[in-house]
Amino acid sequence: MVATAFLPELWTEILVPVCAVVGIAFSLFQWFIVSRVKLTTDLGASSSGGANNGKNSYGDYLIEEEEGVNDQSVVAKCAEIQTAISEGATSFLFTEYKYVGVFMVFFAAIIFVFLGSVEGFSTENKPCTYDKDRTCKPALATAAFSTVSFVLGAVTSVLSGFLGMKIATYANARTTLEARKGVGKAFIVAFRSGAVMGFLLAASGLLVLYITINVFKIYYGDDWEGLFEAITGYGLGGSSMALFGRVGGGIYTKAADVGADLVGKIERNIPEDDPRNPAVIADNVGDNVGDIAGMGSDLFGSYAESSCAALVVASISSFGINHDFTAMCYPLLVSSMGILVCLITTLFATDFFEIKAVKEIEPALKNQLIISTVIMTVGIAIVSWVGLPSSFTIFNFGAQKVVKNWQLFLCVCVGLWAGLIIGFVTEYYTSNAYSPVQDVADSCRTGAATNVIFGLALGYKSVIIPIFAIAISIFVSFSFAAMYGVAVAALGMLSTIATGLAIDAYGPISDNAGGIAEMAGMSHRIRERTDALDAAGNTTAAIGKGFAIGSAALVSLALFGAFVSRAGIHTVDVLTPKVIIGLLVGAMLPYWFSAMTMKSVGSAALKMVEEVRRQFNTIPGLMEGTAKPDYATCVKISTDASIKEMIPPGCLVMLTPLIVGFFFGVETLSGVLAGSLVSGVQIAISASNTGGAWDNAKKYIEAGVSEHAKSLGPKGSEPHKAAVIGDTIGDPLKDTSGPSLNILIKLMAVESLVFAPFFATHGGILFKYL
Amino acid sequence: MVATAFLPELWTEILVPVCAVVGIAFSLFQWFIVSRVKLTTDLGASSSGGANNGKNSYGDYLIEEEEGVNDQSVVAKCAEIQTAISEGATSFLFTEYKYVGVFMVFFAAIIFVFLGSVEGFSTENKPCTYDKDRTCKPALATAAFSTVSFVLGAVTSVLSGFLGMKIATYANARTTLEARKGVGKAFIVAFRSGAVMGFLLAASGLLVLYITINVFKIYYGDDWEGLFEAITGYGLGGSSMALFGRVGGGIYTKAADVGADLVGKIERNIPEDDPRNPAVIADNVGDNVGDIAGMGSDLFGSYAESSCAALVVASISSFGINHDFTAMCYPLLVSSMGILVCLITTLFATDFFEIKAVKEIEPALKNQLIISTVIMTVGIAIVSWVGLPSSFTIFNFGAQKVVKNWQLFLCVCVGLWAGLIIGFVTEYYTSNAYSPVQDVADSCRTGAATNVIFGLALGYKSVIIPIFAIAISIFVSFSFAAMYGVAVAALGMLSTIATGLAIDAYGPISDNAGGIAEMAGMSHRIRERTDALDAAGNTTAAIGKGFAIGSAALVSLALFGAFVSRAGIHTVDVLTPKVIIGLLVGAMLPYWFSAMTMKSVGSAALKMVEEVRRQFNTIPGLMEGTAKPDYATCVKISTDASIKEMIPPGCLVMLTPLIVGFFFGVETLSGVLAGSLVSGVQIAISASNTGGAWDNAKKYIEAGVSEHAKSLGPKGSEPHKAAVIGDTIGDPLKDTSGPSLNILIKLMAVESLVFAPFFATHGGILFKYL
Repeated sequence: MVATAFLPELWTEILVPVCAVVGIAFSLFQWFIVSRVKLTTDLGASSSGGANNGKNSYGDYLIEEEEGVNDQSVVAKCAEIQTAISEGATSFLFTEYKYVGVFMVFFAAIIFVFLGSVEGFSTENKPCTYDKDRTCKPALATAAFSTVSFVLGAVTSVLSGFLGMKIATYANARTTLEARKGVGKAFIVAFRSGAVMGFLLAASGLLVLYITINVFKIYYGDDWEGLFEAITGYGLGGSSMALFGRVGGGIYTKAADVGADLVGKIERNIPEDDPRNPAVIADNVGDNVGDIAGMGSDLFGSYAESSCAALVVASISSFGINHDFTAMCYPLLVSSMGILVCLITTLFATDFFEIKAVKEIEPALKNQLIISTVIMTVGIAIVSWVGLPSSFTIFNFGAQKVVKNWQLFLCVCVGLWAGLIIGFVTEYYTSNAYSPVQDVADSCRTGAATNVIFGLALGYKSVIIPIFAIAISIFVSFSFAAMYGVAVAALGMLSTIATGLAIDAYGPISDNAGGIAEMAGMSHRIRERTDALDAAGNTTAAIGKGFAIGSAALVSLALFGAFVSRAGIHTVDVLTPKVIIGLLVGAMLPYWFSAMTMKSVGSAALKMVEEVRRQFNTIPGLMEGTAKPDYATCVKISTDASIKEMIPPGCLVMLTPLIVGFFFGVETLSGVLAGSLVSGVQIAISASNTGGAWDNAKKYIEAGVSEHAKSLGPKGSEPHKAAVIGDTIGDPLKDTSGPSLNILIKLMAVESLVFAPFFATHGGILFKYL
Repeated sequence: MVATAFLPELWTEILVPVCAVVGIAFSLFQWFIVSRVKLTTDLGASSSGGANNGKNSYGDYLIEEEEGVNDQSVVAKCAEIQTAISEGATSFLFTEYKYVGVFMVFFAAIIFVFLGSVEGFSTENKPCTYDKDRTCKPALATAAFSTVSFVLGAVTSVLSGFLGMKIATYANARTTLEARKGVGKAFIVAFRSGAVMGFLLAASGLLVLYITINVFKIYYGDDWEGLFEAITGYGLGGSSMALFGRVGGGIYTKAADVGADLVGKIERNIPEDDPRNPAVIADNVGDNVGDIAGMGSDLFGSYAESSCAALVVASISSFGINHDFTAMCYPLLVSSMGILVCLITTLFATDFFEIKAVKEIEPALKNQLIISTVIMTVGIAIVSWVGLPSSFTIFNFGAQKVVKNWQLFLCVCVGLWAGLIIGFVTEYYTSNAYSPVQDVADSCRTGAATNVIFGLALGYKSVIIPIFAIAISIFVSFSFAAMYGVAVAALGMLSTIATGLAIDAYGPISDNAGGIAEMAGMSHRIRERTDALDAAGNTTAAIGKGFAIGSAALVSLALFGAFVSRAGIHTVDVLTPKVIIGLLVGAMLPYWFSAMTMKSVGSAALKMVEEVRRQFNTIPGLMEGTAKPDYATCVKISTDASIKEMIPPGCLVMLTPLIVGFFFGVETLSGVLAGSLVSGVQIAISASNTGGAWDNAKKYIEAGVSEHAKSLGPKGSEPHKAAVIGDTIGDPLKDTSGPSLNILIKLMAVESLVFAPFFATHGGILFKYL
């Protein structure tokens, strides 16, 4: 008797797209609410709404009239700055996509040619790998469909990033304006905008994947193995765009940020985001293209890859053999449930509770994580019960393994909860409410050097618990359900991605809001509120990065396992020369990559510094505020530098699997993947947390809330100067090299998986002929 | 027909100790020459020698009378400072050894009990592992002899470090005095003193090992497997002392250095090594206990371990079965040849050529590396030809493998030359004669932040070529002769250890010489000369660290291979949950360890800063030079802090293999070893090189030799201040956490090897009962 899932196939076919559509609708609804904060000054006859009649857009009367809500010029100024930021970001992204588009066409051709060559471009069907009695579609078909899904993944990723940026640049000034009415109002706008992005991305990713599977199925029919192999291209497409998005955006944002800070804050002693600083628009553009668009693409890539990894592993399980569509779609069902759970979770922040004070912001965001995790646990239980047969068989590198549905439930849960633990540990090490960051702030007393030493040590230390959490997840999920277990654990960690992205996107939006407040010349009280939002945002950004890295580790391992299966090797023995050299070189790659990205930021920042200095020296009246700086040149410097500098690290990541696989073969490539995974995850975590800690140590001194913090401040004191240096060093670590590393490990794994048949057939030529 | 080595057993029995004795004699001869530089002022009737009659101790007339060679007070002052440094160092080492001694006794007991328990403390002989027809000695004997060899290794290591320190503190003031006569004279004294240490250490290590083997052989007789298993304790003893030496010494030296610099150079604006700085003596003591004693113990450990790894692997090869003593002693013959080759190499620096100008120093030291490598290549060819049968069989994880003698020659050579390549790459990235360091110096224009970003990027980048060199060595040696090949490759890299140590020890001696010159109030010309010596010393120190790390990587792999053989597992498959979690956690350990050591240096430095500030604030006349600071308190702070702080990282390294092996078993432990190896080697290289680069970037600005350098200086300029911050951050990276990491990876591997039978019998209890 073959056990099948409880949920009928038809229901699955309906439920998945319905959840996706619900997610998109919810996202649009949030956008609608945000859009009710008006940015126009309504100078005409209309007196019914807008900010100019003392009412806010929700119809509440304002509590604090003195904040200048009636000041039409402020609203106009905000709108103007927003337009400048939005235009800069759009223009950068279009430039980036132009270059990336060329790459995409080129790489799509490589995929088609390399995969097509596996069977010499034959159009004949062939016996299936795991069931020799049946026939499967030819390699040429896999080549063609992989190419198509690669392009689809890339386009979806680009759209995710672009829309995220559009939403963020739409919300930033609105957050600023709402900050006049209190910190709670501003928080809601920023958070809703984050939710727009989170739901749009999670739901559209699911929908596109779902449609692609169904369309491909028309051709593939019974050949599920071929179908899901072709689908892996989707993950590759998503991740390769994410790579360029993260690296390009990361270099852009940090070149501008570092450049602006070095001259503005350190040399000229003007505040952050001061409108006199020529690099200030570029800096704010950077937040949107780096932290929003780059991060959106990144998490979309993780999500696409973990789904693909789970699907490809499942396709050669008993689901595939029995044609149990519902069970096969278990990963998609988990994601669908995730959207619903996150929807409920969001209501807790936006409708069920209200933020009234600064100190409630961080707990509110933290509660989002806890609530979504708790509800999702129930959700996974339901999905596992209705969507899986009570027991099924998976293939584990040649051997078979029987898995119970409750075991798979545990696999997803362990990933989900490991994510929460990583989130909390990250928060502990990067929030200035706890001793680690306070210790770093304290070390600023003795100067920048001790600040850096303590910050680096903090980053190294923050790796310990996340690594144990990931290791336990891997052990549990691997033991229960081999690579399928690891893949669904990754999916579990990413199942609450909508909430994760919402709180992650909230950070840069608040950062921008603060920038706009400063530039529009609003009062220091507004700035204090946006700073409070931003400090919480730094922590959530670090948490988001923790999730991204943790899930990347699990995803990479699952992809790695799928690659090994597909490449037809059964062990990856460290004690063979081919594997150990791969392991050693693989562990080196994150360093090489970081060297490139750090140096890129450094060089681009130097150019920016020169330009900013030049403007201060040559434009009369700039320091006095009587002349306007030339923002456009700084935007152009960041754009040019990031486009130019993203190519070498991009090539390193994209070419390494191809070169290693082709010249050294699948064993060495396995070593490289394992090495880069275990080494990269550590650097990524430590870099993100070190940077986050320095940033918040600086904010801790600036805010001066406690006696201890006051003794280190105020702004401009020697400890504060030391803290600013640490913050500047942390910028490329936390926003460029660190977060790019999880793309490095995932992308190399998914690329190896896509090209596995090619490497297995034509790879390792160096050892063949030596 | 069984092929045996050409060299008769009797000759081997004679040649090895003779070479060792020659090495010791040469070392004593160099000491004698150094001792002819008089530190007494000879105020009595004698007018035949000394520095007080215008002649130097070699009888040459002085060229530069104006340097104040006749100044008796200077000589007396130098002698006084030297005594203070020597006493501080001796007192610290004795304190350290007291604590370490307790640990040694405790750990010796663990070794005996754990290994004895393998066969339940039975005194019965048992069948051998690889030749079941023969009987081998009981596990209890291995336990007892392992314990003895552990103690011997520990004592030899302690002696090596202690004697090294004695020599260095004997030579430092003599180098200062000779610097009055020119840079060449000073160089020769510093270099000869380094050679004393290098030869003493290499030769005594060989001699003790040789004697131990011969004594143990009386009991073991035909049971070579048991004999060489027991000998591995020697490596463990050597390395565990090295761990405490490196960590304790590293914390000591950097706490003092960072503390002295932060207050002296940055706050009080007084020069480095100024006698008014209360931490100055502690700083100079630190160089001797950290860079000399610590490094001596470290390299001795590497040397002992690679010999042990090679011997234990060889004991289960056809050498062991055929009782071919000469072939068995091949590793010792390589080391013996190494001593002779280094002896000739040293003459090139001391007798064949003479240093006349500052710019000749670095090339002279570099030539040492090249000459020793070239001659050693010939030496290895001879040893391989006479010391090995033309072909022999080794065991490769269950399988057998036939190896030719020329293949083994290539294995040793590839290690030797990889060492040279690593040395040169290190030099390129850390010497201020090349663009990488100059770029870092240039980035100081925009402040400390860009300096740090560029420095970190440089360190990451400097990893690339060394890793490829190590990977190629591993691939070649592993392919030819499996783990035996890797072990002899490590031995090849360490075969020129005497020269390596000589140029490595030269650095801290020169550094101390500069410090003494400053403290004794000698003219700036003397200081410039010692600074030039010291700048070259920074580079050679980085090269030495490169060697230490490269050889540690190879040694660890060989020990790892031996561990796997001895533990009775045949594959270490990454695609099993037990191994992959080990790999991930293993890769995390270097971060955990670095976090501890960095934080320790930071905290200890903060204490030092407070004390130095206190003295400047409370001792009247200190800044004016009319009152003397309280050096002793600073020495005590460094001593106490380093003793206290070395315990947690020490425990982490020593306990991890025991805990993992006992609770999780040999597969997970294998993963941990592989993970820490591939991850640790990268951090170690990048940390050392980043630190070295920052130090020399600062020296580049200070020296102001080129137009570019002048534009960044002089001392006290903004770029120089930024460079000082980088240098301070680099201190713990390059002298504490970085170099300790190679001990971490080696020590965990050798410890696992020693305890392998215990883990194989009683290990993995967690998985057994779960």
